[in-house]
Amino acid sequence: MIQRLAIVGVGLLGGSIALAARAHGAAREIIGIGRDRARLEPARRAGAVDRVTTDLAEGLRDADVVVLAATVEANEQLLSVAWRAVTPAAIITDVGSTKRAIVAAAERLASAAPRAFVGSHPMAGSEKSGYAVARADLFQGATVIVTPIDASEPRAVKGVTALWETLGARVSALDPETHDRVVAAISHLPHVAAWALVDAVARFEPSALAFAARGFKDTTRIAAADPAMWTEILVGNRDALAASLTAFRRALDELEQVVASGDREQIGALLARLKRERETLS
Amino acid sequence: MIQRLAIVGVGLLGGSIALAARAHGAAREIIGIGRDRARLEPARRAGAVDRVTTDLAEGLRDADVVVLAATVEANEQLLSVAWRAVTPAAIITDVGSTKRAIVAAAERLASAAPRAFVGSHPMAGSEKSGYAVARADLFQGATVIVTPIDASEPRAVKGVTALWETLGARVSALDPETHDRVVAAISHLPHVAAWALVDAVARFEPSALAFAARGFKDTTRIAAADPAMWTEILVGNRDALAASLTAFRRALDELEQVVASGDREQIGALLARLKRERETLS
Repeated sequence: MIQRLAIVGVGLLGGSIALAARAHGAAREIIGIGRDRARLEPARRAGAVDRVTTDLAEGLRDADVVVLAATVEANEQLLSVAWRAVTPAAIITDVGSTKRAIVAAAERLASAAPRAFVGSHPMAGSEKSGYAVARADLFQGATVIVTPIDASEPRAVKGVTALWETLGARVSALDPETHDRVVAAISHLPHVAAWALVDAVARFEPSALAFAARGFKDTTRIAAADPAMWTEILVGNRDALAASLTAFRRALDELEQVVASGDREQIGALLARLKRERETLS
Repeated sequence: MIQRLAIVGVGLLGGSIALAARAHGAAREIIGIGRDRARLEPARRAGAVDRVTTDLAEGLRDADVVVLAATVEANEQLLSVAWRAVTPAAIITDVGSTKRAIVAAAERLASAAPRAFVGSHPMAGSEKSGYAVARADLFQGATVIVTPIDASEPRAVKGVTALWETLGARVSALDPETHDRVVAAISHLPHVAAWALVDAVARFEPSALAFAARGFKDTTRIAAADPAMWTEILVGNRDALAASLTAFRRALDELEQVVASGDREQIGALLARLKRERETLS
């Protein structure tokens, strides 16, 4: 059992970690840390966290597990503060959507002072953000990717994996490069496609929006994701995203060529293959 | 009240029309017509239709409202048979996803023998098909586009509009050309984007599929749509789809350029605008 779990950033992910840790009895004490006390209060009033503080170093003192749950660039800044604030016994992770940068930052910090860090990325999110949409069951059955490197402390990987499993998640390990390529394909590319769909219709066929039904709405739901959070993700992963976009454009071109050919048999076979591919997912 | 409602093709849409008409007491008698008696039986056993037949002309005899609910190309074939089979008093509509071709076919047929036809397109569907997924409330609150032209019989427009409103839908009228352009943007383009997403990931980053979460799944749900049905839609509307794809590619290119610039302010402003656009939809 964790004695003191410190969560920096009590939004959708940080708040859900607090609620899930509470529900599963994973930690004796949970501290919520953020820049704005008023935004931390709902989590404290709901009992998700035991106390809140805007003083990062004070909040991290004596924590045995630290979770950085701000935006990806903020997490990188917070990491160096956390590195100095925690005891060497503490385990640190983050929940950001890109992993190369923060893992590299941890590696640089570790060369001066060894600490137990491993990156995490829970594949459970929403286009909505903030503690108001946090849920104790957000990680139930979800996949969490942890991103150890050769230099990672085994007890960080073990402790962070155990935490996620306690919260109901399945844990997979990927190296940071593979992680960033995988999420470019499975998450960042669909976001860009959803934004481009909204943009294309809003600019070139705006009257059509009034007729949007479930298909358009589901396909573009993630276009309402938080702009500040996503700006950092896109900038941080733009090289991997560019590779995914190249693959996407190629798929789009080939689809259009097959449709333009009017060859019904070929079109039907292509759509049947893609239906099968999609149906391998639940 | 409709005395005899004949529905040709008792799948998701035809079956839902039968169930909704029954639930709302819209018709005294409902006939289900299809090529395969075994596939019609579930609707009859459930009481959605009073009787079923594989004989089109027999099924249409004495119908006062006929709904063609097969695929778009099949509806066009069925229309000319229906034209001869029904009495001049009957009202005919179809529920296909493209409208220029069938409206033009109706106009040609009407020049030889006047009949009361207007096209319909309920903006309520699913990636699933068949009577098994039909629902009495499918049209509740949904939009149905009717596509009258100058030559349309007013009583067709009036009768078909009244039927959809009885089934719970809101009815909008668009000319067939506008309809096909609107659905290219709001329905056919998102399908192509979803297929291309599945294809891009399956071919270029297949190991990423194991990490697909709600974002990818929602964005690509419609990629599991029926291949035969969609082959006909795509071929029938490929010119309008090509125009939508041009707009989509332009939006995609501009998004990628803004991301590649690394200009956080510009990226954030773009994502904020697209979030607002998306949030105008429920």
